[in-house]
Amino acid sequence: MNYNHNLKPSEVRNLIRKGQLNQQTSGLCGGYAQGNLVVLPQNLAYDFLLFTQRNPKTCPVLEVTNMGSTEFVKSAPNSNLTLDIPKYRLYENGELTGEYEDIQSLWRMDFVSFLLGCSFTFESALIEEGINIRHIENGSNVPMYITSIECEPAGVFSGPVVVSMRPIPSHQLVEVVKITSRYPNVHGAPIHIGDPSMIGINNINKPDFGDSVEIKENEVPVFWACGVTPQAVAMNIKPEIMITHAPGHMFITDIKNHQLSIV
Amino acid sequence: MNYNHNLKPSEVRNLIRKGQLNQQTSGLCGGYAQGNLVVLPQNLAYDFLLFTQRNPKTCPVLEVTNMGSTEFVKSAPNSNLTLDIPKYRLYENGELTGEYEDIQSLWRMDFVSFLLGCSFTFESALIEEGINIRHIENGSNVPMYITSIECEPAGVFSGPVVVSMRPIPSHQLVEVVKITSRYPNVHGAPIHIGDPSMIGINNINKPDFGDSVEIKENEVPVFWACGVTPQAVAMNIKPEIMITHAPGHMFITDIKNHQLSIV
Repeated sequence: MNYNHNLKPSEVRNLIRKGQLNQQTSGLCGGYAQGNLVVLPQNLAYDFLLFTQRNPKTCPVLEVTNMGSTEFVKSAPNSNLTLDIPKYRLYENGELTGEYEDIQSLWRMDFVSFLLGCSFTFESALIEEGINIRHIENGSNVPMYITSIECEPAGVFSGPVVVSMRPIPSHQLVEVVKITSRYPNVHGAPIHIGDPSMIGINNINKPDFGDSVEIKENEVPVFWACGVTPQAVAMNIKPEIMITHAPGHMFITDIKNHQLSIV
Repeated sequence: MNYNHNLKPSEVRNLIRKGQLNQQTSGLCGGYAQGNLVVLPQNLAYDFLLFTQRNPKTCPVLEVTNMGSTEFVKSAPNSNLTLDIPKYRLYENGELTGEYEDIQSLWRMDFVSFLLGCSFTFESALIEEGINIRHIENGSNVPMYITSIECEPAGVFSGPVVVSMRPIPSHQLVEVVKITSRYPNVHGAPIHIGDPSMIGINNINKPDFGDSVEIKENEVPVFWACGVTPQAVAMNIKPEIMITHAPGHMFITDIKNHQLSIV
């Protein structure tokens, strides 16, 4: 069944909640922003929030719940973040210990949930402006790399910046920087253009996460701060418990992509 | 003595530190951003940081120190925030109990310090574009008003949005919105243009803080979220202790104003 058309975010969340939709969310609810989920116990919430403040390009925060709340009240009124994502991941002491279709049985009243911006938003903007995105054309996952750039540490959280890479034809570089600059809440402008070795990437054909893509003759690799960073950093400290969405299975918000553009 | 010219921020901070400069900081270190200071005990820091995340227009955070640290390491390397502001205010249980030229004797290792963006930055940008700012022409303080708009609450923090007002000629309104939109870290675009009563201001000639300014025949009042908001909100909950800069006596950073522009 194809749910891509005409359904509102609240309707798609409702299908997910009822277990009637459990696919990846890429392409669903065109025009609406999707977000990364990170759930942590309250005793780590201050350090993590400070980490996001100090690393806004890797960790653009769309919303933070009150402790124990399961609703993103601003980004998705009447949502239930324990039910409205098709697939969740549970990490215990830094190890992935399971995937879940809902996290009701795992819920604790000391949980704080973070909704972080996702590059789907700026990719939509790029495509609308006629810029091709290789991994979308390929139907594969974006290639991601651990860099030699360190995040600004905050409390117990520290680690390297993870980037995503998209090959861009030279003549479109300026336009790509301009367009993505307008979306600081979904990673914003690139953090590097060109030579991968300058940011500690030794083999562009071997991404640390996701799938490799071809870089053609006239193209330059362009790197953006990636939403995998906060998860990697959080996992790095092996928290007793952390829950996230499963890759590609995002939280669909009521926020229109254009609302995340700053000009 | 006129220190306005050619001194770097670090040099001016050093003069302040030595007690050789104790005036208001408006006009000092042209081209560099100045910031508001809020110092709170760690037990309030999470709620306050969450408040700033939920209210980015009133509370644009430039930097948050590690607990106990007296240095804004990113915004002003080698600074000492207990010495480098000409005048501080101490609030105890919500009451102003004193003004200090330094706060070394008050310092506690559980303090967390927040540096918040200040409208001086966007005023510089407006002036450079040929837009006159009435209260600067007058040599008076900007008029500020408590509005009927509520901040998004976070933990123990809640309260009304405080706005600053600048009269702008009708033909410059578009330009003013465009220019200030580029500076989201120093309050950004206006939150209201025109009729003051729509945001709960009943007498535009009686500001709640600062000085009244004339609105001329061809001018429209334009309202921006104001950095007094976080202080007012923090004071509202009568914290055991809170330290801020004294009005007009700001923390001078090494950040160039143009670095705070997003395009």
